[in-house]
Amino acid sequence: MQHLPGVGPKTAQRLALHIIKRPDEDVQALAQALLDAKQQVGFCQVCFHLSAEPVCEICRNPQRDPDTICVVSDSRDVIALEKTREYKGKYHVLGGVISPMDGVGPEQLTIQPLVRRVSQQKIKELIIAISPSIEGETTTLYIGQLLKPFTRVTRIAFGLPMGGELEYADEITLARALEGRRELD
Amino acid sequence: MQHLPGVGPKTAQRLALHIIKRPDEDVQALAQALLDAKQQVGFCQVCFHLSAEPVCEICRNPQRDPDTICVVSDSRDVIALEKTREYKGKYHVLGGVISPMDGVGPEQLTIQPLVRRVSQQKIKELIIAISPSIEGETTTLYIGQLLKPFTRVTRIAFGLPMGGELEYADEITLARALEGRRELD
Repeated sequence: MQHLPGVGPKTAQRLALHIIKRPDEDVQALAQALLDAKQQVGFCQVCFHLSAEPVCEICRNPQRDPDTICVVSDSRDVIALEKTREYKGKYHVLGGVISPMDGVGPEQLTIQPLVRRVSQQKIKELIIAISPSIEGETTTLYIGQLLKPFTRVTRIAFGLPMGGELEYADEITLARALEGRRELD
Repeated sequence: MQHLPGVGPKTAQRLALHIIKRPDEDVQALAQALLDAKQQVGFCQVCFHLSAEPVCEICRNPQRDPDTICVVSDSRDVIALEKTREYKGKYHVLGGVISPMDGVGPEQLTIQPLVRRVSQQKIKELIIAISPSIEGETTTLYIGQLLKPFTRVTRIAFGLPMGGELEYADEITLARALEGRRELD
């Protein structure tokens, strides 16, 4: 279990001992749940979010605005954005960011299906919501260049986080907050 | 020394014992430095930033754009913004934020001198850089309402901090980042 993310030698030992002490049927149920999860959960054919069905719940939901696509790198980002309850459009999960150092090029991501989606369907706005890092910036600019001929491309704001104090913000965040300033309405 | 910010009983004791062990002249020098600081450092007559002179270095600097004023709540914010080396305009230090709960109204802050500055001088842009909190928002909107007749009023961006991961951002920050999205250039 040491191979699991966030599980070091100590936690692995604790988990192993816990499992050994549980009744057989509990352990069988856990094992089955893991197998089921692996077998049943796949990727949505449209947006590549995790889904037990061929097309995910968000893509199937007729209440969600089909003209807006929010591009994220990972399914976890979809979950985070859904928690805000602010976004009513659809998603597209890239499955990572462009990172030549790790051998990840545009072909390893779901960029081609995204281009197909945007070119085949009338999309009003493509919102790129990728975490700010060198790879994230590269990916954002790459997708922007590729899709600007088809639709309006925007990106989420970078700046001071809520509850953040100006004096404790790092210099780059402050510089981005200044640069990204907007008219007060 | 327990009254100093960030100094609890243990640190106070450590500091006290340290001082007792130092030679007399060191302690005298420290005491004198404290008195000098208190006596010599006051507020800039123009922007209310800390200054040893009647008018602070930033206000006196002819290299700095006199047509842009960045409004902050505290001198520490000026120091933080200066560290970015991105901002070339002047400042205005409010001395706090509007907070009825703490008995701080607009009169307790340097808002009146700010209005005077903006109305008497040609200001191209007033950038409000106040940390996001309920009091900060109130202060930003108050100043905006007051000064929009005179000049263009902007505010710094709120959103994902640099190096921040989308999935770890709190919901309000993410919502603000989405709301504040901008055209990709």
